[in-house]
Amino acid sequence: MTPPIRKLLVANRGEIAVRIIRTCAELGIDTVAVHSAADRDSPAVRMAGESIQIGPSPAKRSYLYIPAVIEAARATGADAIHPGYGFLSENPDFAEVCEAEGFVFVGAPAAVMARLGDKSTARALMAEAGLPLLPGSRDPVETVDEARDLAGDIGYPVILKAVAGGGGRGMRVVRDPSEFAAAWQQTRAGATAVFGDGRLYIERYLEPARHVEAQILADTHGCVVHVGLRDCSLQRRHQKLVEEAPAPGLPAELAERIGAAAVRGARAAGYVGAGTVEFLLDADGNFYFMEVNCRLQVEHPVTEMITGIDLVAEQLRIAAGERLTVPPGGLPRGVAIECRVNAEDPGREFAPAPGTLTECVLPGGQFTRVDTHISAGYSIPPNYDSLLAKVIVWGPDRATAIARMRRALAETRIRGAGVATTAEFLHDVLDHPRFRAATHDTALIGSLTAPVGAPA
Amino acid sequence: MTPPIRKLLVANRGEIAVRIIRTCAELGIDTVAVHSAADRDSPAVRMAGESIQIGPSPAKRSYLYIPAVIEAARATGADAIHPGYGFLSENPDFAEVCEAEGFVFVGAPAAVMARLGDKSTARALMAEAGLPLLPGSRDPVETVDEARDLAGDIGYPVILKAVAGGGGRGMRVVRDPSEFAAAWQQTRAGATAVFGDGRLYIERYLEPARHVEAQILADTHGCVVHVGLRDCSLQRRHQKLVEEAPAPGLPAELAERIGAAAVRGARAAGYVGAGTVEFLLDADGNFYFMEVNCRLQVEHPVTEMITGIDLVAEQLRIAAGERLTVPPGGLPRGVAIECRVNAEDPGREFAPAPGTLTECVLPGGQFTRVDTHISAGYSIPPNYDSLLAKVIVWGPDRATAIARMRRALAETRIRGAGVATTAEFLHDVLDHPRFRAATHDTALIGSLTAPVGAPA
Repeated sequence: MTPPIRKLLVANRGEIAVRIIRTCAELGIDTVAVHSAADRDSPAVRMAGESIQIGPSPAKRSYLYIPAVIEAARATGADAIHPGYGFLSENPDFAEVCEAEGFVFVGAPAAVMARLGDKSTARALMAEAGLPLLPGSRDPVETVDEARDLAGDIGYPVILKAVAGGGGRGMRVVRDPSEFAAAWQQTRAGATAVFGDGRLYIERYLEPARHVEAQILADTHGCVVHVGLRDCSLQRRHQKLVEEAPAPGLPAELAERIGAAAVRGARAAGYVGAGTVEFLLDADGNFYFMEVNCRLQVEHPVTEMITGIDLVAEQLRIAAGERLTVPPGGLPRGVAIECRVNAEDPGREFAPAPGTLTECVLPGGQFTRVDTHISAGYSIPPNYDSLLAKVIVWGPDRATAIARMRRALAETRIRGAGVATTAEFLHDVLDHPRFRAATHDTALIGSLTAPVGAPA
Repeated sequence: MTPPIRKLLVANRGEIAVRIIRTCAELGIDTVAVHSAADRDSPAVRMAGESIQIGPSPAKRSYLYIPAVIEAARATGADAIHPGYGFLSENPDFAEVCEAEGFVFVGAPAAVMARLGDKSTARALMAEAGLPLLPGSRDPVETVDEARDLAGDIGYPVILKAVAGGGGRGMRVVRDPSEFAAAWQQTRAGATAVFGDGRLYIERYLEPARHVEAQILADTHGCVVHVGLRDCSLQRRHQKLVEEAPAPGLPAELAERIGAAAVRGARAAGYVGAGTVEFLLDADGNFYFMEVNCRLQVEHPVTEMITGIDLVAEQLRIAAGERLTVPPGGLPRGVAIECRVNAEDPGREFAPAPGTLTECVLPGGQFTRVDTHISAGYSIPPNYDSLLAKVIVWGPDRATAIARMRRALAETRIRGAGVATTAEFLHDVLDHPRFRAATHDTALIGSLTAPVGAPA
């Protein structure tokens, strides 16, 4: 029997560190915030019971540097480590080191993470479990010639994906055989540089497509459930900008089949913890396994808003060996939408736009939740991702939720020299007839933001 | 058929003005904020479509000055007026002038308000409708001798109440016949000064007592429903500090009877709009009608959090002649708690502690709602009530909601020279064993805050 968690080290920063600390405060769990030099004055540092600097600003030397994180956990007497998302959250080596050093890792077991983190192995595993896959290479492809032949068999457009990628990184769409060789070399070089692993695989690229994902909870006693679907089709270059729950416009029977497939896949992988099984849907209602994210998702609050579940609390309970109560929470109710307010300039192809905030008005009031680490005077470090705040709203129906989100975004005023955000852009996107009709797909945002004259 | 509301004038200030403007923004209704000189830079002014100054800082010359409000509505082309709570919200003359001048008044009809605003008439009306009343005077009492005789018949302790009072103002408890004459004179003088009406009535003072109230919605087509109960027993000198929904620890059968009595009473009064029927409960589960508040309550968000209903939207729909959908929202879910963060110093008998905020950190994150008009740099005007922010949380159960609220209050940091708030005090109150066990009553806060040596 795993002992209860008494003191948790949060191996992350920004809004997700704050998010995790909040649940710990509610559960009576002490917290340790680790931080880089740049994040010295961050709210996570203020809100945690203790804090400790683990390195200079570059993530590689702090948030990604395993020995520093482990040493901080040891020095502060933490008994568990929550990796948040990004950084070390899907690094099986980190999970393994945590366990080896006697810390409870709040996430999937290292072996499961390794299995599912290799996107090629994950594909094979899910195929075995009977999940539908897009046509593609079963194993990583070695040579460009072999790959081009395979792409011809699969049929264009295809997508090249890094075996070690995921979360929308390390992938490239190829629409024409003539572009294949160059795309292959570039993607391979990128994957080698970013992930230290240049292996690629190929899949049919589905478009138009909806991105739908199932939130999984699995305990150490063999209970695996899903707590609803999310739609994350509003993406720009495979990065989600708007997410909602439940997935709109799906026949109940289809939603049920997707949820059941996700549970089957998680069970086949021996999954434990909170995780997400991602799918692509075509216009005919066929769905295809894409990947499993072995961590809390950025968009987890939309599931929380409709189910009443605190997913971080569930993660901590699972990590402490507790049994899931099934169904956790009650029946889902209403519609929740999340918008990611990023420090990016939509007028300059979403280039990062960091700086110091002279003004920071965030929305509030009825059925509105904000997860953030920013406030007036905050200096956005250029070292990390550009997420400033997640604005989440709930409504009894989708039209109300959309109106509420547009109200909330209209209230939002984040200003500073050089600072730009996606708030106004998203305010307009939510008014798009295709989003309102729930007939949007993963190409919608690209079609709105493509430079004039560029192919859609 | 009443035409839809196109432009609404908000005849209020502070958090409730912001609250109402938010719903209008979601419904596509234009807004006009009226403000005093002191509120020139308030968020309601910034958030409304238009704003107009209606007078100097004292409320009597601005928010309470009917001709200025009406003139502002006329000048801006508003077609409806929402009075919020306090100020003119329960003034039947104002409701009447609005209607006479062709503005939709978002509240109860003037005649209903007059009937229920006279607490003595309201008592008689509710007695006729079969609602249980505490022993007391049927009609206003004229002379002190008559009153003292009556108090003797009723039995001590008794409470003297201004016929024109309500909302916890204009009342005084008398525990001993020897104190009666002085209390009578003082209460009468106070009522004359504050309400311009010195008439008093007498009731048995119930203690220990729970304060429980039912949220009523009634449309113009004769449909009257209640959407759940709230407990507001944590009070200091009849002013609510903490509210929750549903009322904890009530047998379902008792809660049902209270709700049914509230609906019966509202129906008997010909009620239209959103209103609240307040009751006192004794330890044996007997409940007694106290008063009807013909307006939105400060604590309305706790009902919203468990039902999913936007009560301001319902008010606007009712005012536009629409029919209630019954039941509005779904089944109530979980537990919501609200804490009023007031600019008052608990260390100095809750004396008002206004000033300029040098720091203003409000809570956020999972299942946390803040309704406020303050931010860093805000100067709290000394002219109005001391409510700075309402912190509202939701939890699947009461223990989680309490833990969440304590987390949220611990996050709250409102500072400035001379500024003090109730946040930390309430953080401690929520940990009181009697509150945790839901065995608290209206005397609990008094027992915690009574000066040393004073009678409890």
